Amino acid sequence: MKILIAQSTQRDYPIYIGRGLLAEAGRLVQQNTTSRHLVIVTDETVAPLYLKPTRRALASIGEVGEIVIPAGEKHKTLETFELICTELLKQQVRRDALLVVLGGGVVGDVAGFAAATYQRGINFVQIPTTLLAQVDSSVGGKTAVNHALGKNMIGAFYQPHCVISDLDTLSTLPSRHFIAGLAEVVKYGLILDAEFFTWLEENAEALLAQQEAPLVYAVERSCTIKAEIVAADEHEQSGHRARLNLGHTFAHAIEANLGYGEWLHGEAVACGLILAARLSAELGMLDHDSVERITALISRLGLPTKKPKQLGTQAMMASMALDKKHSTGYQRYILLRTIGSAWAIDQVDASAVKAVLD
Amino acid sequence: MKILIAQSTQRDYPIYIGRGLLAEAGRLVQQNTTSRHLVIVTDETVAPLYLKPTRRALASIGEVGEIVIPAGEKHKTLETFELICTELLKQQVRRDALLVVLGGGVVGDVAGFAAATYQRGINFVQIPTTLLAQVDSSVGGKTAVNHALGKNMIGAFYQPHCVISDLDTLSTLPSRHFIAGLAEVVKYGLILDAEFFTWLEENAEALLAQQEAPLVYAVERSCTIKAEIVAADEHEQSGHRARLNLGHTFAHAIEANLGYGEWLHGEAVACGLILAARLSAELGMLDHDSVERITALISRLGLPTKKPKQLGTQAMMASMALDKKHSTGYQRYILLRTIGSAWAIDQVDASAVKAVLD
Repeated sequence: MKILIAQSTQRDYPIYIGRGLLAEAGRLVQQNTTSRHLVIVTDETVAPLYLKPTRRALASIGEVGEIVIPAGEKHKTLETFELICTELLKQQVRRDALLVVLGGGVVGDVAGFAAATYQRGINFVQIPTTLLAQVDSSVGGKTAVNHALGKNMIGAFYQPHCVISDLDTLSTLPSRHFIAGLAEVVKYGLILDAEFFTWLEENAEALLAQQEAPLVYAVERSCTIKAEIVAADEHEQSGHRARLNLGHTFAHAIEANLGYGEWLHGEAVACGLILAARLSAELGMLDHDSVERITALISRLGLPTKKPKQLGTQAMMASMALDKKHSTGYQRYILLRTIGSAWAIDQVDASAVKAVLD
Repeated sequence: MKILIAQSTQRDYPIYIGRGLLAEAGRLVQQNTTSRHLVIVTDETVAPLYLKPTRRALASIGEVGEIVIPAGEKHKTLETFELICTELLKQQVRRDALLVVLGGGVVGDVAGFAAATYQRGINFVQIPTTLLAQVDSSVGGKTAVNHALGKNMIGAFYQPHCVISDLDTLSTLPSRHFIAGLAEVVKYGLILDAEFFTWLEENAEALLAQQEAPLVYAVERSCTIKAEIVAADEHEQSGHRARLNLGHTFAHAIEANLGYGEWLHGEAVACGLILAARLSAELGMLDHDSVERITALISRLGLPTKKPKQLGTQAMMASMALDKKHSTGYQRYILLRTIGSAWAIDQVDASAVKAVLD
């Protein structure tokens, strides 16, 4: 088991990464909280796989309740959030209880938002069961639900008490979802770590085969990079954390226009990374060889390299105008200078964006 | 104009108290924020009275949008919260904008919660226009909406950048609402300041007549006590801040059972203060003379001293079991040892509560 420590203004908390950790959850949770009343929040896909073993692992701590929500990005809504709050009230869950969030990024975001706001905040821990959640959404304290007019538009910064990433849970993850998670892994290499990007080029097939050593390294390296960036700018105020949104302005526009869940978030991010690279090249920041390397790696991983055919430039541009990564009066994009070096750039010319989308 | 400084972990912020402050709002807001895009959130009762003068006062800062929500406690819901978020998105309000929350406690709580969570938090200022909001809800950063199963069950701790309390706005406040606000003023005397309670006994009629000097003093003293208690325990973790809930467990049960808005919050608090005093006496903590003084003052102020006739003990007890002021396994109440000294007491015997309610 690897243990990383994530720093935040609320508290520092451990991220546990390894195999067989679900069975250890009781011990790990008790090392980080004092609650004797736990409520597991999971979704209809994960419940049949991991709810029972998680309950068993936590039973020694005290009373364990459960809430099962519908699965999928299209349920990352205020409606599902309200459903969780109503269940918490029906189960008479008090402020000193602990939410145990078990599942992928959607469960983590919506149940994390419930933890942030139920009775003005109760403690929670994350047990991510998808690659995307393990390398990205479970770390850093961003919680949110989507609004019909934009992704993640309602939420809170709220840190967990610990994150338990059991790599064994990836064995039941459908291949399409595993691959989608790799898009965020590639992102970390692009943002901050050229060596890691090269390592990914050399280990793409081993990762796709879910070989143990490369998988552990990829999750660990991703969490380390994410935790470092979050610690430097937890509430996304200096532009430092904003770099984690590389490709995401494009990705959110794809997701919003297709309808949430049509493409997986990671698939949209993969395509967004390429569009961000091409925009960087269009603006003369990034060389064309790098764009080709990025496109080649994403393609080898089996991720989409082109935006959905049915999606026009105009629809994409309209969605992106609403995206929160823009500050007043300017179009802000995260762009690449080299592989391993991303920057938040204000005042990006809309015509360059249009040229890339056309 | 009086200026108090409220301390919080997020930031220290000023509370301005005086007459004619609405016209000064532009200057006061600019001293505390850098936003150039403002959105006023108010309700249908306050809008015809103060929306135009507020817009005028803020116009020099930049673009000023507006959102008008339905009035009244029964609209302090997730539905109204969502309405605000949808309007913010439709008006393309970005994360660096400023919400200006204009109105009473309901607008403050629900729009404050929107500020706390829209795009994971944008800046806001409070311009409270009711006595209750000026002496209580605008200070301390508690934001929330009600749930059918309990009051303030969904919310966040989120501090404003400043509070502007213009006492002139109280001139348009219906007498019943003004009187309801006095219940929270009495509460501060009971919790922490026996001298202030005696002052209230001596100045009850002057306050009811809204005489200038006593009114300024009552608002200032209330805000000072509240800000001090909040600074010591912002997130209600040590039991210190919980004392502000004196009478509120009973009050919330009255409000939830009658339906929100039937009794005004302050009216329910007045009755709750007397029930808390009687429970304190029942448990041998408080002498009966003090209970009589408290009852007499509340009665002189024209506030209810008895719980609604139609409300049975059983219904009250059931609601209170759900109230958030209880920690696991115990019944927690805020009780009085003397006038001016309140304490959070766990393990209160349910039979004593029942005796008081019967």
